[in-house]
Amino acid sequence: MGEFDLIARYFQRAESQGPRHAVVPNGDDCAVIAPAAGMQLAVSTDTMVEGRHFLSTVDPARLGHKALAVNLSDLSACGAQPLAFTLALTLPRVDEAWLAGFSSGLLALADEHGCELIGGDTTAGPLAIGITVMGEVPPGQALLRSGARPGDELWVSGWPGEARLALEAFRGTLAPPLDGEAFEAVRLRMERPTPRVALGLALRGLATSAIDVSDGLLGDLGHVLRRSRVGAAIALGALPISAWLAARPPAQQHDCVLAGGDDYELLFTAPATRHADVLAAGQAAGVPVHRIGLVQADAGLRLRDGAWGAEGPQGAGIANRWTSFDHFKSS
Amino acid sequence: MGEFDLIARYFQRAESQGPRHAVVPNGDDCAVIAPAAGMQLAVSTDTMVEGRHFLSTVDPARLGHKALAVNLSDLSACGAQPLAFTLALTLPRVDEAWLAGFSSGLLALADEHGCELIGGDTTAGPLAIGITVMGEVPPGQALLRSGARPGDELWVSGWPGEARLALEAFRGTLAPPLDGEAFEAVRLRMERPTPRVALGLALRGLATSAIDVSDGLLGDLGHVLRRSRVGAAIALGALPISAWLAARPPAQQHDCVLAGGDDYELLFTAPATRHADVLAAGQAAGVPVHRIGLVQADAGLRLRDGAWGAEGPQGAGIANRWTSFDHFKSS
Repeated sequence: MGEFDLIARYFQRAESQGPRHAVVPNGDDCAVIAPAAGMQLAVSTDTMVEGRHFLSTVDPARLGHKALAVNLSDLSACGAQPLAFTLALTLPRVDEAWLAGFSSGLLALADEHGCELIGGDTTAGPLAIGITVMGEVPPGQALLRSGARPGDELWVSGWPGEARLALEAFRGTLAPPLDGEAFEAVRLRMERPTPRVALGLALRGLATSAIDVSDGLLGDLGHVLRRSRVGAAIALGALPISAWLAARPPAQQHDCVLAGGDDYELLFTAPATRHADVLAAGQAAGVPVHRIGLVQADAGLRLRDGAWGAEGPQGAGIANRWTSFDHFKSS
Repeated sequence: MGEFDLIARYFQRAESQGPRHAVVPNGDDCAVIAPAAGMQLAVSTDTMVEGRHFLSTVDPARLGHKALAVNLSDLSACGAQPLAFTLALTLPRVDEAWLAGFSSGLLALADEHGCELIGGDTTAGPLAIGITVMGEVPPGQALLRSGARPGDELWVSGWPGEARLALEAFRGTLAPPLDGEAFEAVRLRMERPTPRVALGLALRGLATSAIDVSDGLLGDLGHVLRRSRVGAAIALGALPISAWLAARPPAQQHDCVLAGGDDYELLFTAPATRHADVLAAGQAAGVPVHRIGLVQADAGLRLRDGAWGAEGPQGAGIANRWTSFDHFKSS
C-alpha cells in the first residue's frame, strides 16, 4: 500500500463523518480553517516515540487515543475549545491491523471533542507520532501558568498517580505487586488518559493559572510557581488518593501522586473566594476537583504532612524528594 | 543539558529578536496566536527523518533551513502569508554544535519570512524533525489543486531538477560524473531550497491552481489534474533547463526536471489571458516563471517533444516513463 492509499483508507473521512471545521480539507498543500470571528488560536505540539513514551506492545487503539489526548490536555490547560489537528506519522512498515486500530482510537477521541484531522504526513522510519492541535479561545481568556496569586487555592482534578503506579508495575518495581484487576485498571489510566477539556473550558474566567500534569505534579507545579513568581504550601493529607492507590503503602501513594505524570489531570489555582464556583465547575465537567494547597508570596514549595486546617495546609514540614521527569536526564 | 535548558538556549528568542505574532509565546501549555480579523488559517505539516529525507552528514544549518523551507513551500502553494510554526525535534543525544547550527539555519529563514517559532517539543529518539506551519490567507483566496480549467496555461517557477541531479550525484549514478563546482551548486539546491513564498502571494487571484513540486513535477501535476478533473499537454522543449542541467545528457535533463522533486518550485495554472500578469508576478517575486504546458479537457497527460507553438505544445508524443516518488514504495 502506498502513502496516498494509506492516508485515504485510514485517515480520510466521508463528508458526513466526523467534525467539519476546515474550509479546505485534508488533501491540498495546506488545510485551511476559519476560526470564529475574533477568536484567538491556541496551538500545541507533542511527539510520542516508541520505546520512550510507549511500548511496542501497546494496544494501537489506546495509542491513537493517547496521542491525541496528551495534546487535547494542553488545550484544556489553556481553556481552549478543540478545533483541528494535524498528524505526522512515522511508521517502520505498513501494518494494516495496527493502522486500523490506531486510527479508530484516534478518530473516536477526535469526534468526541469535535476536533477535525485536517492534515498530516506519513513517513517511513522508526515509529513516532507527532500531533499539533489547535483550539479556539476568546481574546485574553487563555489560562496561563503565570497568573497564580498569593492567597489563591491550589487544586488538582481527578485521581493523579494511577498512571505512575501502572508504569512502576510494568517496570516490576512494586512491592507488594499489583493484582491483575488493579493492574488492568491503572494500566487503562496510563494507556488511555482522559483529557480534561470540559473542565478547562469551565475554568475560563475562574482559574488564575493552570497546567496539565504530564511530568509530575510537583515538577509541573514548579513551572507555575516560577512563572507566577510565587510559592505554595501543599497539605499531603488533602491529596486525592484513588481507591487503587489507597491499597498501596503510604510512601508509594505519595510517590505516585506527587511525582507521577502521564495522568493528564489539571493543576490550577483560583481565588479562595471562588471555592464554591470551582467545585461547581468540576461537577459541571463531570470530574472531581480537590483543593490541595495554598499559593503564598514566599517563593518555593512547602510540603506539610497534615490535612487542610483553618489556616490552610497544616502539620510538620517534610522534605521534597520528588522531582520532575526530564527526557534528557536519566531518571 | 536538560530539555528545558536546551529549548531556552537554542530556540527561545529575546523580546527584541525575531517576528512576534503570539499573544502567549512559547513556554506555556499552548502558544496563542491572534490571526488578523477575518483571515483564514492555512496549516501544513512535514516531517523529515534521518536516512530517509537527509543524510546524517548534512550541514545542520542547511538542515534547519530545509526543515522549515519545505513547510513554507506548502504555504506558498496556497498563497498564504507565513505567520507561525511549531517544532517537534527528536534527538538521539544533545549535541550542542549541531543544535547551534540547526537553530541558526532554521531561525534565519523564519526571520526572513516573519514566521514565529511559537512552540514545540524535544524528545530523545532517532533524529527526526517535525514542523507544523500556519499562515494567513484572505477568505476564499487560498490557491488549491482543484481549480485548473481547460485552456489555462501551465507554469513552473525557477529551475526544477537540480535537487534531483544532486541526489543522483550522491547516489553515484551519474554518467559522466559531476565536477566539483557543479556538485556544490546543485547540492545547495537540494540541501537549502528556497520556498517561493513571494510568488505564491503574487499569484493570489491570478493562478487557478497551484502545488509545490516535492515528489516530482509530473507526479505532482497528476494531483492537480485529478483534483481539477482535467488533462494537460506539456512541451518538453519549453521546460526550463538550468545551466548546470544543460551540461548533462538530454535524457538526464528530462529525468531530473520531470521526475525530480525536492526543489520546491511552484507548479501552477492561470488563464491564458493573464499571461503577461503571470510574467509580472514572477518578476515582482524575483523568480523566473516558465510556461510549459496547456490544460485540456481530456483527462490524462500528453508529453510532446517539441517547443511551444501557435496551438500550444507541439512535436511528437512520447511515453511518460517518469512517475512520482512514494515513501512506501521502493523507488
